Amino acid sequence: MPKSNNHSITRFQKQLNFIIEIDKIKTIIRQTLLMDSSKQENDAEHSWHMAVSLFILDEYANEKDLDLIKAVKMALIHDVVEIDAGDTFAYDKKAHEDKEEREKKAAERIFGLLLDDVRAEYIALWEEFELGETPEAKYVGAIDRFMPVLHNCITKGKQWEKHGVTADMVLERNKPIEDGSQFLWDEVTRMVEVAKKDGYLL
Amino acid sequence: MPKSNNHSITRFQKQLNFIIEIDKIKTIIRQTLLMDSSKQENDAEHSWHMAVSLFILDEYANEKDLDLIKAVKMALIHDVVEIDAGDTFAYDKKAHEDKEEREKKAAERIFGLLLDDVRAEYIALWEEFELGETPEAKYVGAIDRFMPVLHNCITKGKQWEKHGVTADMVLERNKPIEDGSQFLWDEVTRMVEVAKKDGYLL
Repeated sequence: MPKSNNHSITRFQKQLNFIIEIDKIKTIIRQTLLMDSSKQENDAEHSWHMAVSLFILDEYANEKDLDLIKAVKMALIHDVVEIDAGDTFAYDKKAHEDKEEREKKAAERIFGLLLDDVRAEYIALWEEFELGETPEAKYVGAIDRFMPVLHNCITKGKQWEKHGVTADMVLERNKPIEDGSQFLWDEVTRMVEVAKKDGYLL
Repeated sequence: MPKSNNHSITRFQKQLNFIIEIDKIKTIIRQTLLMDSSKQENDAEHSWHMAVSLFILDEYANEKDLDLIKAVKMALIHDVVEIDAGDTFAYDKKAHEDKEEREKKAAERIFGLLLDDVRAEYIALWEEFELGETPEAKYVGAIDRFMPVLHNCITKGKQWEKHGVTADMVLERNKPIEDGSQFLWDEVTRMVEVAKKDGYLL
C-alpha cells in the first residue's frame, strides 16, 4: 500500500496490514462440508456463519444479558490463529497435543500486526474464547461446536463416516455446548439419536 | 431436521431453516479476487471480512457513537439476498436496472423463513442498508465499497483490467464512501492516484 506523510496514516497502515493478513483465512480449509456437500468450508465462511447464528440463537444462551459485541468479535476472529497454526480437526487427538502452543505463537504474530491498544483487546478476546470461562466464551464456544454438528446432520454424516466418528465421540467432543447453552446441548443429543436411528452415525 | 413434540422446537426449527438456507451464500461468487489472487471470493467470505474490518476501522466513521450491533448485523446479512438475486457486479449498469426488484423479492423469501419478530427486524436492517441514509448504513456501505478497492490495489488491479474499469469509474462508483467515512474516501482517492501512477488503473 502507498505511504503518506500524514501522521495518522501509520495508524491506518497498521490497521490495513491486519485486514490484509487475515484475508488468508479464506484459504484455511476445515473438515466440515458445505450443506450442499459441494466442498469443504473455510474458516472465513465458518466464522461468518457463526456470527450470524449467534444473533439468531442468542435466546438459548444459558446466561442472559450477554455482551453481544464481545461475542460477535470473538466469533469473527476466533480462527484467525489458524493462518499459522492450521485447522486442527476436532477428532484428531494427536494434533491437539501441541495445538495450544502453535496457536499462542500465531496469536502473537497476527494480532501483533495491530496497534498496541487494539492488539491487547484482540489477544485478550482470543484467550478468553480459548479458556471458555466467561458467559460470552461459553456461548460462542457452543455455537462453534454446534455448527459442524448441524452441517453433518444436513449432509447425512458424510464427514463423520469419512473420519470414522461415532456417536460417543460426537457427544464427548460436544459436551461443552452444555456450558454455553443447555437448550442447544439437548438438541444435539436429540440430533445424535436421530442420526443413529437413520443410520448415518454409528 | 428431526421433529419433536416440544412446542419451542417449532421456533427453533424456523431459526435453523434460516441458518441452513443462508449456507448458500458460500457459493455466491463475486468479481473480487482474494488478495493472493488464488480465486474469486464468495459472499460469506466478503461479509466476514467486512464485519471484522468495520470494528477495526470504526474510528474513521463520520458519525461517532454508531450502534455497532446494528452495523455488524447489517454487514453480516447485507448480501443474503444474492442467494436468489445473484451478485450484481459493481460496474454492470444493465444488471443494476432490475437489481432492486430482484433483491426485494429475495429478501421477502429468505428473511421470510424467520419468525415474525426477527423477520421484521432483518428486513428493516437490510432495507436500511440499501437506502444508505442512517449513520450505520452509510458506514457499512463505505466498508462494503472500500473492501474491493483494497483487494484490487493488493492484486495490482487484476479485476479492474479484466473488466476494463477506469480510474474515473472507480471514483464515481465509490464516491458514496464519503458519506460514511471522509477518511476512507480520502484514502481511496489516494489509492486510485497510486494505482494510476503505477500503471494498474487507466
